[in-house]
Amino acid sequence: VRTGVGRTIRRMTGAPVPRLRARELGLAFGAHPTGRFNAITDVPGVRVGHVTVWRDPVLGHDGVGRTGVTAIVPDGVAELFRRPMAAGVAVLNGAGELTGSIEIREWGVLETPIVLVSTNNVGRAADAVVDATLVAGIDEVVIPVVGECDDSWLDDITRRWVTSDHVREALDIAIDGPVAEGVVGAGTGMVTMGHKAGIGTASRVLDGVGTVGVLLLCNFGAPEQLRVQGRLVGPDLVAGATTAPTLDRGGSCLGVVLTDIPLDARQCERLARRVGLGLARTGSVAHHGSGDIFLAASTTNRADRDAEGFVERRLLADGSLGPVFEAVVDATEEAVTNALFVADTVTGVGGHASPGLDVDRVIELLGR
Amino acid sequence: VRTGVGRTIRRMTGAPVPRLRARELGLAFGAHPTGRFNAITDVPGVRVGHVTVWRDPVLGHDGVGRTGVTAIVPDGVAELFRRPMAAGVAVLNGAGELTGSIEIREWGVLETPIVLVSTNNVGRAADAVVDATLVAGIDEVVIPVVGECDDSWLDDITRRWVTSDHVREALDIAIDGPVAEGVVGAGTGMVTMGHKAGIGTASRVLDGVGTVGVLLLCNFGAPEQLRVQGRLVGPDLVAGATTAPTLDRGGSCLGVVLTDIPLDARQCERLARRVGLGLARTGSVAHHGSGDIFLAASTTNRADRDAEGFVERRLLADGSLGPVFEAVVDATEEAVTNALFVADTVTGVGGHASPGLDVDRVIELLGR
Amino acid sequence: VRTGVGRTIRRMTGAPVPRLRARELGLAFGAHPTGRFNAITDVPGVRVGHVTVWRDPVLGHDGVGRTGVTAIVPDGVAELFRRPMAAGVAVLNGAGELTGSIEIREWGVLETPIVLVSTNNVGRAADAVVDATLVAGIDEVVIPVVGECDDSWLDDITRRWVTSDHVREALDIAIDGPVAEGVVGAGTGMVTMGHKAGIGTASRVLDGVGTVGVLLLCNFGAPEQLRVQGRLVGPDLVAGATTAPTLDRGGSCLGVVLTDIPLDARQCERLARRVGLGLARTGSVAHHGSGDIFLAASTTNRADRDAEGFVERRLLADGSLGPVFEAVVDATEEAVTNALFVADTVTGVGGHASPGLDVDRVIELLGR
Amino acid sequence: VRTGVGRTIRRMTGAPVPRLRARELGLAFGAHPTGRFNAITDVPGVRVGHVTVWRDPVLGHDGVGRTGVTAIVPDGVAELFRRPMAAGVAVLNGAGELTGSIEIREWGVLETPIVLVSTNNVGRAADAVVDATLVAGIDEVVIPVVGECDDSWLDDITRRWVTSDHVREALDIAIDGPVAEGVVGAGTGMVTMGHKAGIGTASRVLDGVGTVGVLLLCNFGAPEQLRVQGRLVGPDLVAGATTAPTLDRGGSCLGVVLTDIPLDARQCERLARRVGLGLARTGSVAHHGSGDIFLAASTTNRADRDAEGFVERRLLADGSLGPVFEAVVDATEEAVTNALFVADTVTGVGGHASPGLDVDRVIELLGR
Repeated sequence: VRTGVGRTIRRMTGAPVPRLRARELGLAFGAHPTGRFNAITDVPGVRVGHVTVWRDPVLGHDGVGRTGVTAIVPDGVAELFRRPMAAGVAVLNGAGELTGSIEIREWGVLETPIVLVSTNNVGRAADAVVDATLVAGIDEVVIPVVGECDDSWLDDITRRWVTSDHVREALDIAIDGPVAEGVVGAGTGMVTMGHKAGIGTASRVLDGVGTVGVLLLCNFGAPEQLRVQGRLVGPDLVAGATTAPTLDRGGSCLGVVLTDIPLDARQCERLARRVGLGLARTGSVAHHGSGDIFLAASTTNRADRDAEGFVERRLLADGSLGPVFEAVVDATEEAVTNALFVADTVTGVGGHASPGLDVDRVIELLGR
Repeated sequence: VRTGVGRTIRRMTGAPVPRLRARELGLAFGAHPTGRFNAITDVPGVRVGHVTVWRDPVLGHDGVGRTGVTAIVPDGVAELFRRPMAAGVAVLNGAGELTGSIEIREWGVLETPIVLVSTNNVGRAADAVVDATLVAGIDEVVIPVVGECDDSWLDDITRRWVTSDHVREALDIAIDGPVAEGVVGAGTGMVTMGHKAGIGTASRVLDGVGTVGVLLLCNFGAPEQLRVQGRLVGPDLVAGATTAPTLDRGGSCLGVVLTDIPLDARQCERLARRVGLGLARTGSVAHHGSGDIFLAASTTNRADRDAEGFVERRLLADGSLGPVFEAVVDATEEAVTNALFVADTVTGVGGHASPGLDVDRVIELLGR
Repeated sequence: VRTGVGRTIRRMTGAPVPRLRARELGLAFGAHPTGRFNAITDVPGVRVGHVTVWRDPVLGHDGVGRTGVTAIVPDGVAELFRRPMAAGVAVLNGAGELTGSIEIREWGVLETPIVLVSTNNVGRAADAVVDATLVAGIDEVVIPVVGECDDSWLDDITRRWVTSDHVREALDIAIDGPVAEGVVGAGTGMVTMGHKAGIGTASRVLDGVGTVGVLLLCNFGAPEQLRVQGRLVGPDLVAGATTAPTLDRGGSCLGVVLTDIPLDARQCERLARRVGLGLARTGSVAHHGSGDIFLAASTTNRADRDAEGFVERRLLADGSLGPVFEAVVDATEEAVTNALFVADTVTGVGGHASPGLDVDRVIELLGR
Repeated sequence: VRTGVGRTIRRMTGAPVPRLRARELGLAFGAHPTGRFNAITDVPGVRVGHVTVWRDPVLGHDGVGRTGVTAIVPDGVAELFRRPMAAGVAVLNGAGELTGSIEIREWGVLETPIVLVSTNNVGRAADAVVDATLVAGIDEVVIPVVGECDDSWLDDITRRWVTSDHVREALDIAIDGPVAEGVVGAGTGMVTMGHKAGIGTASRVLDGVGTVGVLLLCNFGAPEQLRVQGRLVGPDLVAGATTAPTLDRGGSCLGVVLTDIPLDARQCERLARRVGLGLARTGSVAHHGSGDIFLAASTTNRADRDAEGFVERRLLADGSLGPVFEAVVDATEEAVTNALFVADTVTGVGGHASPGLDVDRVIELLGR
């Protein structure tokens, strides 16, 4: 399993098997090389933890769970709070939630790990992050950063399976190295352009500058709009796609960009804004109901939370941001494609099915 | 007690006694008349519920609680979700949180009641609102609107006294009529410009146009900056004020404006932006650590959540907004003054005291 | 010539000849049908006027001019001022200018025609719009809406060829019907992804809803990023592209969306935001120096400038915006492609050349 | 005359005589000391130039001019373009114009001097700044920063008296030292809360940190709302105020903050946002028609326009911004008061009068 040591994947029944990522099938995206794992964890210090919550009716328990938690942890909880990282937020379409965004915009910093869950569990995830921060020895007020997508096509969202323990566990087990994609963690119940998707990640290395990592929770778009490497393949794949009305025009994409390039908050916000351009390459038109919300942070531009007086900063000049922007757009496009390629069919609540993308057919359509 | 029937005020020991509001002492603010209760509940249909959480060490239980929940409920939970109200958000200084703000900005609507709590309880309050919405028969994803201030000077925030039950109760007991101010609900542990404050409210009636109601959670500013009716009285009152460094430059003000004037989201956002001008009259300079975040909603501009096709709207023209802006600024100034006038001294965690404002001295300074 | 009666195209020497639009060559973009002219003028009442300023050294006059003015006129100057249209602005990357944007954001209306020029002529274009408004009998203060791109690769921008007369003429000659694209008006000196471009337009008709028209001033992107119908063709065309360092990472795209669908300012802003997604499909990553700035207005949601009291509005519900968003993204993609397809090679100041796109090669690469 | 050497004040007839500033009459605002001149020019390197355009009908020429230009020049035109300063913009109410604001928000820098004029002359002022920049040897595209207020109560705005020469002259004659206030430069025809106003300035010195200077073009508010030192004096002065309907609810305030404290763009934007709080202290509710638009820049945080690679920055930590915010609010309040105190009665177009504030009566009302 590609999920890496330490990532608990709780699948009680019917869990899908891993499949190949886009690049393993020969697809490339843009001119810049990937990092070692082609994942957000290529940015030094960044760890990811998934807890998948997968429930089927068993004797004495009904209800179907296809949900979970994904935690992106750029540093220890206490360390991050005491030395926040420069960060920015961008909203392409705001039909969703990223808690903490108001503070990020004002102070320009990320103070807590980023937790991704399904919509109805945002509050309890935020609550769990407060717990974790207090436990880490921070006796202060905490404004957690929690993003969401809506997995109600596959998950019985009225059951709210995710608990504080799941969130704490996702934080605790977060590790570096390869990152599980597709049907895992917060991505367990997510669907993109009619096909099963969920978590996707990719990275780019800019020589002499640094590494850019992107992780997405993919749950957006309409089947007929799917594009792979820019090619409109959706119409040829509609027959195998879910076309539930609630999915067609809804969904969301929550995107996280981390980089060890020293950038300030304004620059991070500029990076975050580019995630939407990567989504557009894959077919997104940011539908009315889509929460397309993006956060970017710089792991190397940090200052003590209580700093006063004058501080020194080292930053990349704006004039050198061009390749960084390209890296964000390319990695975003690849991360969406990975989420779609890796995710296998999932059947969920009410018998709803979300078929895995017919990757062979895609490759054929691409003429490879 | 001025708090009205149905508002549970849980004070186990040492609760302060009510005092007079600014207007009862002869102070007026601006040219427009107030509503019947001079409260946000003057807007038809609007209800407010406070749950005060007040804990002192007793046999077998340690810890000091000076916190609570205030719920502003413009309509039933299910009714509001199914027929959201036009709404807008403005941020004067974003060192705080108002969950749901991203969606309000995109869709321009308020879908849930507004809950105010202390910072570390935002997540669980949001979680409780999801519960309440599911219980109300809405089987959909919900993005609650929860605002906060930091009451850590008086409350042992590491204990996180507020529970889901408190939030649910605040929603359930919300009623119209007079609104308790000062040391009540979410305002229990809040401090403003060195004096005990908390909840404040006021309203204005614009003949032939409608009613504007403001409710604030006041927890901002430095003692020497306090202004009453614009008069700088802070320096004369510093001796009786709390001058804890953590309070001096921090704090926040979460402001809610409701009106039955038919306004769209853009117009609501313009109203929300005026709350900051009312705070400025009372001495706010929106310090670095202050979460000065404001929401405005129009209770009469509503549409079915799932509306499609063409809809008709009746709106107040922008050219008639002048008096509405004045009403927001005046009511905000009065609400802050009320919060300060009504709140009596509270002693809290670590023996910290927050003295009630010496209102007699203020009146004397005003030369009345 | 496709430019239509009444559009003065001043080309003194060496003007390129018209070429075919993308759709004439069999390319389609999205599922929705185009309007009659596949142009922004398909929106009833909308007129476009181009004045091309083309100068070559002749006896007694030196200097090379490759610039001009494009005016988009949704109604008569006086009529528009007296009954503004609902409008919104979105900025993908703000390294550019759209005057009037602050007012559009506050009041949510468009009061003047939209004029596009080269960067150094924005001020005089705005000045000319004030003139035109005063001449039209409006004795009030006017805040014009002027957008720009930088044509300094081909035009001697220090000469500032555009005069007030050119702007007034563009307003005066604006007509409906087919719209000249490519090397015309403000597009005369513009370059996109290494190839000559300039003005591009397209439209979509949504049955029972209305028409969406897009007009772009295209001057953005790097050669190796060019995508046609999503296909990355840039690398195969780099040999024939201009690769000047100043062009590679700079440029801009000013985009205008007009529609007769009744939308309010918030909704118009949502439309404007989608233009960036169309640019992304063609290869934009919104480089650091790119002014990617978009305006959308609804020609049917108008109110008297001095309206007071209550007004009635008819609007499309947000829930029906999905196809409108698709129309904006598809029409934007097509408009960029048109600008590239129609524009022929131009040689300009300092002997700089901007080659027309090798459309035959593109068609070949697309496998048609 | 207090206007200083080098500031041409063209008053052909009826020019008012200088009066005392607020502080000269014993009024103080806030705890921080002023700079030497209590003016924006206390920030090292900052110069101000006024050109007053004052026209009365004479033989052969009709028309009444009460307008002008004020230029705020933080460094030489070429030097500023080549080494822009960190800058931010904030909009309290956007019924106005500040050209260049989109670029300032994206790049976070100020590249040109700031020019203030009356609304209908913004375009030609911008055009003149382009001229000045080209003349200074910059052969590039320039996006000028021009702000405005509407002086149509006193000036015949249809005549558009301001010429390119006036703007160039204001730039050329800008000097440091004392700054003329009231009826001068762009302030010549401006009115505030029913009384003649115009230019106001003030500064604060924060020991060991730096100097904060504010310059305002004051043209806002309704007579009955005037507050001096927070005291509501408007109702007592209404008899002597202009109560033209067009003035009552309109007007604007364009505010400029400059500081030599090293701040980045995000921090400058935070400063700019505080200007509105100072206006509120003087009675502003940011009426519907008011363009309350503010810019802040840091003269010491500069980088080469074409910088690439890594750069080092020295910044004040956010935790030390508290006194800086206070300085902005206090200096703004004082600058408004200065504009009102210094400006004497002006009669203008159509015989409209704008009476100077009855300062003696104000002092009496303040109980001094």
